[in-house]
Amino acid sequence: MSTPAADRTPLSQRSPEELHAFLEEQRAAYAALEGRGLRLDLTRGKPSAEQLDLSERLLSLPDGHLDGRGVDVRNYGGLEGLAELREIFAELLGVEVDQIVAGGNASLAMMHEVLVWHLLHGGVDSPRPWKDEDEVTFVCPVPGYDRHYTMLESYGIRMVTVPMLEDGPDVDAVEEIVRDDPSVKGMWIVPTYANPAGSVVTQEVAARLAAMPTAAPDFRLFWDNAYAIHHLTSEEVKSADIVALSSSAGNPHRPVVFASTSKVTFAGSGVAFLAGSRETVGWYLGHLKFASIGPDKVNHLRHVQFFGSADGVREHMVAHREVLAPKFEAVQEALEAGLGGLGVARWTTPRGGYFVSLDVPDGCAARVVALAKQAGIALTPAGASFPYGEDPRDRNIRLAPSFPVLDEVRTAMAGVATCVALAAAEQLVGDAS
Amino acid sequence: MSTPAADRTPLSQRSPEELHAFLEEQRAAYAALEGRGLRLDLTRGKPSAEQLDLSERLLSLPDGHLDGRGVDVRNYGGLEGLAELREIFAELLGVEVDQIVAGGNASLAMMHEVLVWHLLHGGVDSPRPWKDEDEVTFVCPVPGYDRHYTMLESYGIRMVTVPMLEDGPDVDAVEEIVRDDPSVKGMWIVPTYANPAGSVVTQEVAARLAAMPTAAPDFRLFWDNAYAIHHLTSEEVKSADIVALSSSAGNPHRPVVFASTSKVTFAGSGVAFLAGSRETVGWYLGHLKFASIGPDKVNHLRHVQFFGSADGVREHMVAHREVLAPKFEAVQEALEAGLGGLGVARWTTPRGGYFVSLDVPDGCAARVVALAKQAGIALTPAGASFPYGEDPRDRNIRLAPSFPVLDEVRTAMAGVATCVALAAAEQLVGDAS
Repeated sequence: MSTPAADRTPLSQRSPEELHAFLEEQRAAYAALEGRGLRLDLTRGKPSAEQLDLSERLLSLPDGHLDGRGVDVRNYGGLEGLAELREIFAELLGVEVDQIVAGGNASLAMMHEVLVWHLLHGGVDSPRPWKDEDEVTFVCPVPGYDRHYTMLESYGIRMVTVPMLEDGPDVDAVEEIVRDDPSVKGMWIVPTYANPAGSVVTQEVAARLAAMPTAAPDFRLFWDNAYAIHHLTSEEVKSADIVALSSSAGNPHRPVVFASTSKVTFAGSGVAFLAGSRETVGWYLGHLKFASIGPDKVNHLRHVQFFGSADGVREHMVAHREVLAPKFEAVQEALEAGLGGLGVARWTTPRGGYFVSLDVPDGCAARVVALAKQAGIALTPAGASFPYGEDPRDRNIRLAPSFPVLDEVRTAMAGVATCVALAAAEQLVGDAS
Repeated sequence: MSTPAADRTPLSQRSPEELHAFLEEQRAAYAALEGRGLRLDLTRGKPSAEQLDLSERLLSLPDGHLDGRGVDVRNYGGLEGLAELREIFAELLGVEVDQIVAGGNASLAMMHEVLVWHLLHGGVDSPRPWKDEDEVTFVCPVPGYDRHYTMLESYGIRMVTVPMLEDGPDVDAVEEIVRDDPSVKGMWIVPTYANPAGSVVTQEVAARLAAMPTAAPDFRLFWDNAYAIHHLTSEEVKSADIVALSSSAGNPHRPVVFASTSKVTFAGSGVAFLAGSRETVGWYLGHLKFASIGPDKVNHLRHVQFFGSADGVREHMVAHREVLAPKFEAVQEALEAGLGGLGVARWTTPRGGYFVSLDVPDGCAARVVALAKQAGIALTPAGASFPYGEDPRDRNIRLAPSFPVLDEVRTAMAGVATCVALAAAEQLVGDAS
């Protein structure tokens, strides 16, 4: 590993002897790695203790039990969530207050409700419940978020993949799929700093997704804006306004927007949000009223007092960035140091979010994850970013550096680079012994 | 109203002249009532501010963010809920710790999940998802809880009623319905201090419900033990152990038990629980994992620290009783003072829970509620305790005295008695002018 990346010869240009020597080097490096007895975890996009500490004041809030309008937040009621909290996040998500609902602790639960009610009841403009369709298909940009796929799979929904590009999903491919097939009812997308690709859906792509003709009259964009304000640089990318774009394109009920404070305050004890057209919000609350006596308004008030305003949220996210950005830099440095110039891996340099997406040689991802595991470095299973956990090229690995402390990220990522170099060399030498 | 109840002649035994005089008296009393310009609300079983204040210390908890096992409660994970909280409520509900899940802020949401997953997936032992059955029927003891009915109605589930008796649902009737009709998939029941009848399912009735043959192999008892520990007297009725009874009768997966702290701590910000056989809990978590990243464990820890133990919960419920019991006594006194001896009304004297069930002459309930409304006293709509909001005899009124302060309960209930007397007199005189 002592050769500077810029001076390296790509493995594909090396002689068989050089490759053998490289393989032996990597085996030695890997043996040393194994010998360290590491126990490191890069599997999930979890905030670190240091990030959670930023919100510790929440634990002793709220002061009092009345909101600004005099509502006793301890009692039942207020299905749509506390008005003051909805005001803050309406501003952050760029919608009107009556177009947003503040719910429980998980946007995943809200997505589940929206999916289930489409299945059992149908949406605002569905001709029938989706359960009564012969087939229901979702478009899935890949790589993507495993929990989206597993939820769809659990309900027997067919998944068709399209590539996730720098500017969002391959919108040409999407347009073609949705235009002719009425079974295509929806598409999940993480529009900002996508999991794991880091892509941001541009204004242009969003406008096409909002306006594209769909064979299904009730096609839905599940717009999971989980990382809307989770910037890693001072650039602070602005999410496309899918609600307004869809409305002006004549498809007002197409998007259902989700967001949460899971990676803003506490991962397990934040507040989730749903937004969309007024009819979408009315549809959602119209079904929710049979299933809920209202959200945890004490937690809503706690968050209102903690943030104070939308600017308070933005300032808080800067403190997160200061913790996270060095970890993401460490990932870049370790990958460049270990793999730069070898021509065996490509990785993203995200401007926000929680992930780095690493592509290794086709057929090597599972091997890399296995090698890392054996060396005590837990990675997300290869294929996790694809429907059914199956990466057809077995090349993508999702790296999640947020949870370990900085030194551990450095150590783990140096180890990952060793595993990638070893797996690539094994493949090239044709010796996976 | 000045005649002592014991000295009154039942209205049915009075002459036409006496009835006319009585009607005039009640009209005068009602006019006086209207003149007071009241604004009182007996509609819902909501805890009062005084009750909520009993848990005010929760607002500044938890101390720290680690549970007794060192789990950082602020982060993701732990789908089944915090172990220490589950231990406390396992003891209170009489199940093992691995037979209980601690969830979000509403048992209604857990009931909804269980119903929806039966519809879309089927239960532990279902031959197929309930959505694929020609028809799904639930047995509904009446009077009962309106939210159970509206949830069933929202999913197009047929409801068949049986009378709710002193010792629980009319189990002869239930046995007959479930024995021959395979579409009968479930029955919702509030086993302890039922809403609104106040009945407690006895050991004998529970044993028969647990053991009765059912045509459907996957018949479910939705055992909504919302008031398990909500005693109004020192008697402290113990709920029948439906999980053990069903298990020993060979129907281990029949019951799904629900409970919550909605009326123990904060109505909107408590913790809900689900319990049942290990397979039922596994089934529930097996579906929940696609819809949740785990419950709000900070709120779980908050409750653990607040209660300390199951005994801590029991002591806390005594404090609730001290607030609630006088209000329920006031209801009894007002009804007896206004209606005793007239032979026009019967009402329950609950030993726990949140409701008094009042039966007025057939055909008079809606009139009483309308009269009360006009006099500024909001009552639960007549018929609310029946499926589709339709009381076939139009006689039942649910009284919920928990929310108003004691003086308001007295005032409101005296007013209700006046409305009942007036409506009864109107009917007898045949003059509903």
